[in-house]
Amino acid sequence: MEGVDILPHERSKKQFDVDAMKIVWAGSRHAFEVSDRMARLVASDPAFQKDNRSRLGRKELFKNTLRKATYAWKRIIELRLTEEEAGRLRFFVDEPAFTDLHWGMFVPAIKGQGTEEQQQKWLPLAYKMQIIGCYAQTELGHGSNVQGLETTATFDPDKDEFVIHSPTLTSSKWWPGGLGKVSTHAVVYARLITNGEEHGVHGFIVQLRSLDDHMPLPGITIGDIGMKFGNGAYNTMDNGVLTFHHVRIPRNQMLMRVFQVTREGKCVQSNVPRQLIYGTMVFVRQTIVADASSALSRAVCIATRYSAVRRQFGSQDGVETQVIDYKTQQNRLFPLLASAYAFRFVGEWLKWLYTDVTQRLQANDFSTLPEAHACTAGLKSLTTTATADAIEECRKLCGGHGYLCASGLPELFAVYVPACTYEGDNVVLLLQVARFLVKTVSQLGSGKEPIGTTAYLGRVQDLMQCRCEVQTAEDWLKPSVMLEAFEARSARMCVARAQNLSKFANPEDGFAELSADLVEAAVAHCQLIVVSKYVYSSSCANLKTCRVRFNYPWTMGV
Amino acid sequence: MEGVDILPHERSKKQFDVDAMKIVWAGSRHAFEVSDRMARLVASDPAFQKDNRSRLGRKELFKNTLRKATYAWKRIIELRLTEEEAGRLRFFVDEPAFTDLHWGMFVPAIKGQGTEEQQQKWLPLAYKMQIIGCYAQTELGHGSNVQGLETTATFDPDKDEFVIHSPTLTSSKWWPGGLGKVSTHAVVYARLITNGEEHGVHGFIVQLRSLDDHMPLPGITIGDIGMKFGNGAYNTMDNGVLTFHHVRIPRNQMLMRVFQVTREGKCVQSNVPRQLIYGTMVFVRQTIVADASSALSRAVCIATRYSAVRRQFGSQDGVETQVIDYKTQQNRLFPLLASAYAFRFVGEWLKWLYTDVTQRLQANDFSTLPEAHACTAGLKSLTTTATADAIEECRKLCGGHGYLCASGLPELFAVYVPACTYEGDNVVLLLQVARFLVKTVSQLGSGKEPIGTTAYLGRVQDLMQCRCEVQTAEDWLKPSVMLEAFEARSARMCVARAQNLSKFANPEDGFAELSADLVEAAVAHCQLIVVSKYVYSSSCANLKTCRVRFNYPWTMGV
Repeated sequence: MEGVDILPHERSKKQFDVDAMKIVWAGSRHAFEVSDRMARLVASDPAFQKDNRSRLGRKELFKNTLRKATYAWKRIIELRLTEEEAGRLRFFVDEPAFTDLHWGMFVPAIKGQGTEEQQQKWLPLAYKMQIIGCYAQTELGHGSNVQGLETTATFDPDKDEFVIHSPTLTSSKWWPGGLGKVSTHAVVYARLITNGEEHGVHGFIVQLRSLDDHMPLPGITIGDIGMKFGNGAYNTMDNGVLTFHHVRIPRNQMLMRVFQVTREGKCVQSNVPRQLIYGTMVFVRQTIVADASSALSRAVCIATRYSAVRRQFGSQDGVETQVIDYKTQQNRLFPLLASAYAFRFVGEWLKWLYTDVTQRLQANDFSTLPEAHACTAGLKSLTTTATADAIEECRKLCGGHGYLCASGLPELFAVYVPACTYEGDNVVLLLQVARFLVKTVSQLGSGKEPIGTTAYLGRVQDLMQCRCEVQTAEDWLKPSVMLEAFEARSARMCVARAQNLSKFANPEDGFAELSADLVEAAVAHCQLIVVSKYVYSSSCANLKTCRVRFNYPWTMGV
Repeated sequence: MEGVDILPHERSKKQFDVDAMKIVWAGSRHAFEVSDRMARLVASDPAFQKDNRSRLGRKELFKNTLRKATYAWKRIIELRLTEEEAGRLRFFVDEPAFTDLHWGMFVPAIKGQGTEEQQQKWLPLAYKMQIIGCYAQTELGHGSNVQGLETTATFDPDKDEFVIHSPTLTSSKWWPGGLGKVSTHAVVYARLITNGEEHGVHGFIVQLRSLDDHMPLPGITIGDIGMKFGNGAYNTMDNGVLTFHHVRIPRNQMLMRVFQVTREGKCVQSNVPRQLIYGTMVFVRQTIVADASSALSRAVCIATRYSAVRRQFGSQDGVETQVIDYKTQQNRLFPLLASAYAFRFVGEWLKWLYTDVTQRLQANDFSTLPEAHACTAGLKSLTTTATADAIEECRKLCGGHGYLCASGLPELFAVYVPACTYEGDNVVLLLQVARFLVKTVSQLGSGKEPIGTTAYLGRVQDLMQCRCEVQTAEDWLKPSVMLEAFEARSARMCVARAQNLSKFANPEDGFAELSADLVEAAVAHCQLIVVSKYVYSSSCANLKTCRVRFNYPWTMGV
């Protein structure tokens, strides 16, 4: 078949050093080598086979995941894999499972919020997987508004216990992965009540199922919340529902690193700064941005290969035109390709931001935290929305064939889209960014200089007046021109919104009324961040040696 | 639970006559009554249960569909349902099945392209389902470019037979619904070859499987092409792959209403006008536009109800704000609600267009055909793209809950999206519209007046110069203002594209180079059509009695 030779032919036309680019993409030679080794390990082992996943009914699918997760754990032990290697292995096994929550949420929650003693008691059990944990925060009626959680943890000083209870239907824990079938324990978030007074939402370690027969313990009702989008996708995960009927736990199972309840039921704030939580948030969102570039690159890769192989119309000498040569295809595909690189670079930069924030926190410097928080919230929103849309666009770019699971794209979409909702709904996050931007603008001239990704607002006078110097299409390829355009757009939108807001007597009324406009300004600001990190990264020496040329980075996303 | 009372409370605030609106939506009182009766019939019969669909593995799912399709057929006979009633019953059974292709493609192909004798022979068998047929056109390598199909039908004058053959891998028939497991027969499209000469692509009735043991006949290889997007969705359909190895059929199984091959192998064009095919195309696309409004209304209905019931943040007196009261939610949801009505009205108008075209064709008047064809192609593209995007937006508007199959939205999306690809890829269709628009513009002033949906281009001089008279936001609610804005935009884009095209020595080179711009002009033209039919419909007496008020119709879609 003629088609078989097309990809090598296309590859021979490359204008950059592919091996060097692989290193840039991975982040370092070491990261590339670990990734490459784990990819080969998974691909060569029939136990990690994925091709039957979309055909199975829910029960078989889930059994299959249990087998794979157990086998992966066995291999990790046998091969004495490092934490980094184990993480990459799970990445290539590429199947959401209860282990994600055990390692990614349950263990870190105990590490971050537990006292030394609590860590010493629970972490060894968790590390050996003698207990399996999940993270029970979201409720049927409460997702974004964590302060609205209804589950209660009432201190009983007579017995030195907390009573965990679900007072309403909407207080049912809903969504926790690993809860529906597997977990023996959970970190449960509940409103703390002592002496009849509320003290906000805190985490509690609660045993859910017997370690003997795996049955739910008395007072605990658990179920699986049923099928989710896609064939395989998140259906390999046992997202669950959980209610408590006056379940008692010892006082020392409240996670007490930051906030303590004494034997007498008194509340004591520890000297550990609460802001530490924001450091974790920066870390998690950095991971999500990295995942976005990864998912987007897979989709773009599939659509690009398809576009090179597929021919349709435009017959010359009996051979039709490769669809990648159609402008309508390029116009849709190439900006997504550029976005995949842009998101990769901004993800790498977020790693630096996390390190910087962590070092400052350790030195009790909280000054950069609001800006770092707004920045990561915005980038999480921007990159996940753009990636979800882009996967579907790539699917359509493969015509009818993109509708087959064999293309990989339907499952990639179905497994990816929750990223737009979890760890902060994307619109709610943009509103947080907008709030920060408006505040920053309102403080201009007060002596408080905007920092980090908002530093450009310090030049707002210039940016309100500057005129675009572009004369020809090529001018747009100059990084300085691109940057100024994005800065001017974002600055002008922020200032305009702030002015409109100031017309309202009650700022909150104004914020509600103008929220759709405010979201637009937040998007403009986030696009600027991506462009600025992209321009920076693509001008750095490491990348220049690859001689990579990008198309249309300014049309990316949203 | 307080939430339970919310919907009746919201409904009590309605400002229009809901019962009257139901009739408007259905198209007529008769249509509403049939629809309502069939909906109740399906909902009350446990055999049509749908709630287990997303949990089943492929094999069980497919068996389930066979049972349902057989049972539906039994009920249609028992209850002596009319064709209209049977159609609505299948609509509410709401599960793609081989019967869709049998009734919707196989039977109409024989009716439309078969001679009287062929109809008399095959239709009674098909009506009684003694044979089950599918429509085998698309090949692995050819979808949009029907003239590029590779399957051959070579006339053998010695035996008075055609030899159907698949010369390459890419010539495999790929996608036909009903082919993979069920069909006994197919209408197969193949390149006709007689006396060593090619005579274009024609349809042939080919028996695929034995009527005794259902095994594929000699020379025929059939398979199922595997899993598609979603849990249930199109996985209830046995989309198949089919190759022929020199399969012989009698000469009289070529569909010969329009084009005949004689006993001697001579080709004869009949006096039946070929343009009749375009009438069918208008009909099919009218159905697709109607389906778009139906799918979109389901999604919007789910998201609206959710938005009324769901509360989050903004606590006052302990009760949080209904998310439907947030501007960010309204701004995303209400334009989709308006679009559902707009697509419904434009769908009703297409029914009229189909009747008009059919009457003209019967009188040998082909003058309106190119305009009607461009109009329906564009509306198919516009409404299906907007609807697919809107279902996903509605899903996101339901937060995490939209990711559960229980919300209905994941399956609705997965089953809907192929509409963007089948019956003409949406981008390819827009390019056809653009071609027609450019041609129309180039003929202005030549004495050939633009007609129908392009009539506004006859006022191009005015539209190039007119200035928008809007002073206040309310001015946009005037239909005449809205219409003029859309007309001016579309006219100016069409003229600009035509001028840019005229700079190319070779028009085809220009068309390829400017295709992305041309697509934009086509979208502007199609949006104008929707707006004009919407403005017309919402000002008609029937609708006025409902006192319906719409939001933002001008921001709809794409």
